[in-house]
Amino acid sequence: MNFVKKMNMKILIIGATGTIGKHVTAVLQKDHEVIKAGSKSADMQVDISSIESIENFYKQVGKFDSLICAAGDAQFGPLASMKDADFRIGVNSKLMGQVNLVLIGQHYINPKGSFTLTSGALADDPIAMGANISTMNGAINGFVKGAAIELENGVRINAVGPDIVEESMAYFSYFPGHVPVTMSRVAQAYVKSVLGGQTGQIYKVL
Amino acid sequence: MNFVKKMNMKILIIGATGTIGKHVTAVLQKDHEVIKAGSKSADMQVDISSIESIENFYKQVGKFDSLICAAGDAQFGPLASMKDADFRIGVNSKLMGQVNLVLIGQHYINPKGSFTLTSGALADDPIAMGANISTMNGAINGFVKGAAIELENGVRINAVGPDIVEESMAYFSYFPGHVPVTMSRVAQAYVKSVLGGQTGQIYKVL
Repeated sequence: MNFVKKMNMKILIIGATGTIGKHVTAVLQKDHEVIKAGSKSADMQVDISSIESIENFYKQVGKFDSLICAAGDAQFGPLASMKDADFRIGVNSKLMGQVNLVLIGQHYINPKGSFTLTSGALADDPIAMGANISTMNGAINGFVKGAAIELENGVRINAVGPDIVEESMAYFSYFPGHVPVTMSRVAQAYVKSVLGGQTGQIYKVL
Repeated sequence: MNFVKKMNMKILIIGATGTIGKHVTAVLQKDHEVIKAGSKSADMQVDISSIESIENFYKQVGKFDSLICAAGDAQFGPLASMKDADFRIGVNSKLMGQVNLVLIGQHYINPKGSFTLTSGALADDPIAMGANISTMNGAINGFVKGAAIELENGVRINAVGPDIVEESMAYFSYFPGHVPVTMSRVAQAYVKSVLGGQTGQIYKVL
């Protein structure tokens, strides 16, 4: 049997300087060309809540093999005082930001490329004040399953759904009983999506 | 043991004249006060894509015991040509319409009341051209789980997630291999949510 390593892929990482993104970047840039993007401090700026910004981003980077999104805001707060405008924070960033990266990016990605989005454990394992996040995570999981069976030219799509990660100490008290997951395990879930062959999967890291 | 039937509940049904809503209405109005609401032909009009319309609706109906939403549009069409504006049809109606019925309605509902939303089988069992629907169904499932642990005064929330229903013959060809579910089984899932004691559940009807 002849194992050929996928080499020299051009991988776009949105949120590359974030808590998760920096670990995913560190692992993948050993063997691949990684373009680090984000809202502020990365090599390239992109605001995923703006379709114009996403369009401009793809026009600048041109053809690519894989896109990873480890970015997206949602609203953390009590349901009792939550209003439409609060809820739309997650809709416009964590949900539509990631969805638009795919809707637009499907026209730029190379055949057999992949999209890897980020959802999270709260889709199934909620916490108080997390209703907006649970909703967006569930939405991303549904989108990945739906989009996977339609993407053309062998393009794949998966989501990584981690529980609270070990480096997000500031949030631990809001996740009682959740056991923080290591950054290395989370990073490997993204690696599996990019370098593996599966599509339509939710890689839970619990 | 003494079984006491819950009687004389005031139940609001959004989409009461729709394919599913009319069956749910027929079952529940035998024993309860049902207020039939919808975008057009029902007793009361409400546009769930408008927070003003939802606010006005609740102000008119006042206190109530249960709300069922069997309404909400989403976009059916190919992923390859789907754009942000298409995707927002589902966001603004099926997702935010139902979410806003709860965010606003939590301030009007009686203690121990219930919300019952509608998601669907496509959250987990996608079809071609259904990515927008799969996304919104997944979002509603996530919302129900997140909101259930925060709603106050014993108020419950569940979703009913049916597969294609037997009366939606016009769509059968888009659901290859899906076995249409009977209207009576779907209606009973709503009855379980309203009259049962569970919360945070997704009642799949497959």
